[in-house]
Amino acid sequence: MFELLAEEAGARRGRLHTAHGAIDTPAFMPVGTQATVKALTPEEVRELGAQVLLANTYHLALRPGAERIARLGGLHRFMGWEGAILTDSGGFQVFSLDHLVKVSDDGAIFRSHLDGSEQAFTPESVMAIQRQLGSDIAMAFDQPVSWPATDATARVAMERTHRWAARCLTAEAPPGQLRFGIVQGGFEEELRRESAEVLGEMPFDGFGVGGLSLGEPKAVTYGLLALQTAILPRDRPRYLMGVGTPADLVEAIARGIDMFDCVLPTRIARNGSILTRGGRINLRNRRFIEDSGPPDDGCDCYTCQRFSRAYLRHLFMAGEILGHRLASIHNLRLLVRLVAQIRERIGTGGLEHTMTSLRDLWALAPLP
Amino acid sequence: MFELLAEEAGARRGRLHTAHGAIDTPAFMPVGTQATVKALTPEEVRELGAQVLLANTYHLALRPGAERIARLGGLHRFMGWEGAILTDSGGFQVFSLDHLVKVSDDGAIFRSHLDGSEQAFTPESVMAIQRQLGSDIAMAFDQPVSWPATDATARVAMERTHRWAARCLTAEAPPGQLRFGIVQGGFEEELRRESAEVLGEMPFDGFGVGGLSLGEPKAVTYGLLALQTAILPRDRPRYLMGVGTPADLVEAIARGIDMFDCVLPTRIARNGSILTRGGRINLRNRRFIEDSGPPDDGCDCYTCQRFSRAYLRHLFMAGEILGHRLASIHNLRLLVRLVAQIRERIGTGGLEHTMTSLRDLWALAPLP
Repeated sequence: MFELLAEEAGARRGRLHTAHGAIDTPAFMPVGTQATVKALTPEEVRELGAQVLLANTYHLALRPGAERIARLGGLHRFMGWEGAILTDSGGFQVFSLDHLVKVSDDGAIFRSHLDGSEQAFTPESVMAIQRQLGSDIAMAFDQPVSWPATDATARVAMERTHRWAARCLTAEAPPGQLRFGIVQGGFEEELRRESAEVLGEMPFDGFGVGGLSLGEPKAVTYGLLALQTAILPRDRPRYLMGVGTPADLVEAIARGIDMFDCVLPTRIARNGSILTRGGRINLRNRRFIEDSGPPDDGCDCYTCQRFSRAYLRHLFMAGEILGHRLASIHNLRLLVRLVAQIRERIGTGGLEHTMTSLRDLWALAPLP
Repeated sequence: MFELLAEEAGARRGRLHTAHGAIDTPAFMPVGTQATVKALTPEEVRELGAQVLLANTYHLALRPGAERIARLGGLHRFMGWEGAILTDSGGFQVFSLDHLVKVSDDGAIFRSHLDGSEQAFTPESVMAIQRQLGSDIAMAFDQPVSWPATDATARVAMERTHRWAARCLTAEAPPGQLRFGIVQGGFEEELRRESAEVLGEMPFDGFGVGGLSLGEPKAVTYGLLALQTAILPRDRPRYLMGVGTPADLVEAIARGIDMFDCVLPTRIARNGSILTRGGRINLRNRRFIEDSGPPDDGCDCYTCQRFSRAYLRHLFMAGEILGHRLASIHNLRLLVRLVAQIRERIGTGGLEHTMTSLRDLWALAPLP
């Protein structure tokens, strides 16, 4: 399923084959939490260069319901997206949205954020939901812990995650659906190492690295990441969940990560923030009031080709949702393009130079 | 500027030439109040079949300011719309938004709805604003009256509107900008007749019919409309301002109207309502929860070609702005297409049949 095409300076270039097309890696996945990448049509997401998007098991299971989506022909048909879809397992949402009632080895019982109703997720039910959604890549149910967590807490959650992973593998899989396990381990090297070793022995099609970028220092994030990617099987893709910024993408690719998702580009777009090669700016700032230049000079996205900073500022000040939409297009295109630019250099012998330039561009000091 | 190409059963087919292309009439103009047709890009508006859109002098003068738009290259460039733009005069907003401080023959003094600051519009300043915006069609400053208005009130406002119209014509006009006067007269035939006669003598390039559909019975609307279009010069276009529903469009075209604008299609879209050949429906209704059919069967718009009622319902229930966007596309396309379908029949000898079918389709009893 996964072709590893090149390796250079810790980074990997590959191609993951799914039931809905190939994914060239490293890849950035736009987030379509509720079966829509916020404000965008499927055609626009495709035009960004995205080959795969992420949808949320937790949100879709609660509304409109996975059985309903199955009866309507599955998630691809429901939302009109013909590319690949990765569904997360809901573990992150259940354990982070502050509505957890009870966790046991059986699973998690929690309250819906929509109506307060009691809900239960087990490894088996989460895989069943992802089967009903018909995603191309299903994630195993996991239990992340928040920073800072004690070693004891992290160990309990990690060992439970491992047992749940094994149960996810025994669940019935629809034809063609890939399954990724998720490594955890809190914020200590020993646990992270153990998790990568245990999960890496399981016959998953790929691996998510979960529970990182939850408040810990970046040096910790990158260190634990490098430690786990060095252990995980080389012949399968690694997906750093929920990360990140342009800086994070550069550093994580250099540590062997193949896939990313993050709500940052669409979330900050809502309030007028965009990522540019000069840093993050908020277009509501008065200094853009008569700025006739493009939002991000040199960007090839629809927004930057067609509209000025002054116009986008006006849209945000006037509360017009076209502003949210245009800023989302730009932010997503910037990240998809950034990852593609790195990808094209992996295996050419020029990667170090590219990475140094990108670190300079994004004003980053390279971390050990 | 205006070619009258055919007349049949009270309806007219024509072509209005502007500095930004021809407008085939009858025409429906999407509303872009704040320099954006809500949620849509200029390309999407063009794909709907729209050749002209309406922008609001009042809103743009307050934010971001007409001088600012002029410095940024004019409204077309600012919002990225290459088709024609008609700007209203602000009269309707100033006299209806409940922030009027004082009206005199000089003009109107009012408070900004944005910051409460005192503002003044005069016939001359309103034309200057429209010159700065660079619209293709500028409307004269007028004073509508609300239903029910006494004859005395309506007469004062009408006579002032006539004096203001004459002053608008003496203002400096940018090259290529067309100017439309606005007939008023309240809700009595005598005043409406007088207004059409007085305005019709003035050398405007076209005429708006203002102050209708403000609460009066539809029979009154249509009667006064027919009375005024019978008087207005045959060789210039007539624009029924701020109207309307599919039913209104059919009836007004049959009474000699050439142009329309209305916020209805985008306004109702926000809350999940769409116009269909079976009537107006709200997609939030539970009966659509697993409806796999298109929003409006037989519609050729992007939304109806690509998505189900169930998906749109989900988007609205989940608060996703893609729902607003998709419903806006459908509603606008339906009205643009309805008008185009009628237009194509004018002069073919088959118009009466078409109009009867449309009245049946929209469940209308034809009014006298």
